[in-house]
Amino acid sequence: MDARPVTDLSKLCIHSITTKPWSIEEAAKNFSAAGVKGITVWRDALEGRNIRETGEMLREHVLQIVSLCRGGFFPNKTSAKRKTAIDDNKKAIEEAAELGAPLIVLVCGSDPNQPLEDSRKQIKDGIEEIIPFAAAAKIKLGIEPLHPMYADTRSAINTLAQANDMAKEINSKWVGVTVDVYHLWWDPDLEYEIKRCGANKHLFSFHICDWNVPTVDMLLDRGLMGEGCIPVKKIRSWVEATGYIGFYEVEIFSNKFWKEDQSLFLKKIIKAYKENS
Amino acid sequence: MDARPVTDLSKLCIHSITTKPWSIEEAAKNFSAAGVKGITVWRDALEGRNIRETGEMLREHVLQIVSLCRGGFFPNKTSAKRKTAIDDNKKAIEEAAELGAPLIVLVCGSDPNQPLEDSRKQIKDGIEEIIPFAAAAKIKLGIEPLHPMYADTRSAINTLAQANDMAKEINSKWVGVTVDVYHLWWDPDLEYEIKRCGANKHLFSFHICDWNVPTVDMLLDRGLMGEGCIPVKKIRSWVEATGYIGFYEVEIFSNKFWKEDQSLFLKKIIKAYKENS
Repeated sequence: MDARPVTDLSKLCIHSITTKPWSIEEAAKNFSAAGVKGITVWRDALEGRNIRETGEMLREHVLQIVSLCRGGFFPNKTSAKRKTAIDDNKKAIEEAAELGAPLIVLVCGSDPNQPLEDSRKQIKDGIEEIIPFAAAAKIKLGIEPLHPMYADTRSAINTLAQANDMAKEINSKWVGVTVDVYHLWWDPDLEYEIKRCGANKHLFSFHICDWNVPTVDMLLDRGLMGEGCIPVKKIRSWVEATGYIGFYEVEIFSNKFWKEDQSLFLKKIIKAYKENS
Repeated sequence: MDARPVTDLSKLCIHSITTKPWSIEEAAKNFSAAGVKGITVWRDALEGRNIRETGEMLREHVLQIVSLCRGGFFPNKTSAKRKTAIDDNKKAIEEAAELGAPLIVLVCGSDPNQPLEDSRKQIKDGIEEIIPFAAAAKIKLGIEPLHPMYADTRSAINTLAQANDMAKEINSKWVGVTVDVYHLWWDPDLEYEIKRCGANKHLFSFHICDWNVPTVDMLLDRGLMGEGCIPVKKIRSWVEATGYIGFYEVEIFSNKFWKEDQSLFLKKIIKAYKENS
């Protein structure tokens, strides 16, 4: 059964990368004027800026900062590069604290030069190494399982079962899971694993978009909700059934939409959110 | 632990589509001359030919006909189209019998206009409907789980667990599973499910290739064994541990290789088979 319709925008969050052609300042102004209530900030949007002031600017626009994207990319065959990744994750934690984001989404990484099992172990080790820094800064970490088509270089965590297992093993209140319909819609165990995620109280955030049919680019051809074949409403109903009260975050990478007028695209996002999310 | 090296070509089968620019007659001549022992025939390669005579031609070249690709594509929102799919599968069974192929590989299909659960039910119904025809012709049917990136239109069966479950539920000696490393390499449960597949005595065939890093086309950019990040030897060792004594079938769709001289490509296949399979 689908979830009840969304009647307002009170839970609508948009990722800064969704409207990539806009600066974070333009995004803040336009999101706010359109009634969007939350923003997830990608680190590239912060380049060359005072992060603390940017956080203040977003709050002045009455936008809740939902998360910072992204930490992770822990695995590497060479230990020096794993060390560099740890340092970068510590930096991300500092940035999240300065910005005022309570959560960092982890795209965990994968090194095609070593077995997936090694990458998975290095992900767990990496997360455990940064937990003290996350805890000190009061920043949560969301393990985001990525679609299996990204298992070569982007993430060796490819199902919600794996993310749930890892969060459970790590067993820290700072570590949970981010559910993205794009990565997980195909999984026959999805409803069960979303329930499990909620029961473990570690469902930290929820991303939405759609899977285009056909998909012409493995990375940059995500669709607006309703354009493709993902049952977004149904998956949202599973998420809500866990007691999740957080935002629904629109995260779309799209060469097609990035070429459009972003104000028109924002209107389309809001329409798709109301009708198909 | 990797499997022992392959020391000869006695288990090497190549799919006709792997050397797509060649006619089936050219493929037969060249495979045979190179010492290849098996061929899996794609139905497009049979167009405009007498199928029985083509089977004889292949046997004259001392090529074992391993399977016919492909049946399946059962799901559709409209019952008339599901009926058409059943008819086409019956036709495939006739063709396999005429050719002398003991097995049809099923790319099960998926209709993006309906929930995956509906597609999965229609797949099971479709297979059960054609079993009597398969049994009468003594043709086995191999459910091939496809990579989750094909869940929209090509297959709603995306893990070996699903294929094993379905084969077990259907419970016919004519229905089993085809394992393809390209579709399944990312799965954390792969070793377990291959064991289960073997224990159920329904591991019917085994396809190999590699996952290119990066992959530039979702369908037509498969790599030669050793070029990418799939642990082909390790997966072969799991397959062999089940007691599997069938062929290792090289199935590569590649715009890049199809543009090359196919005789040189065949040499590369044999080298990759010996060194990285």
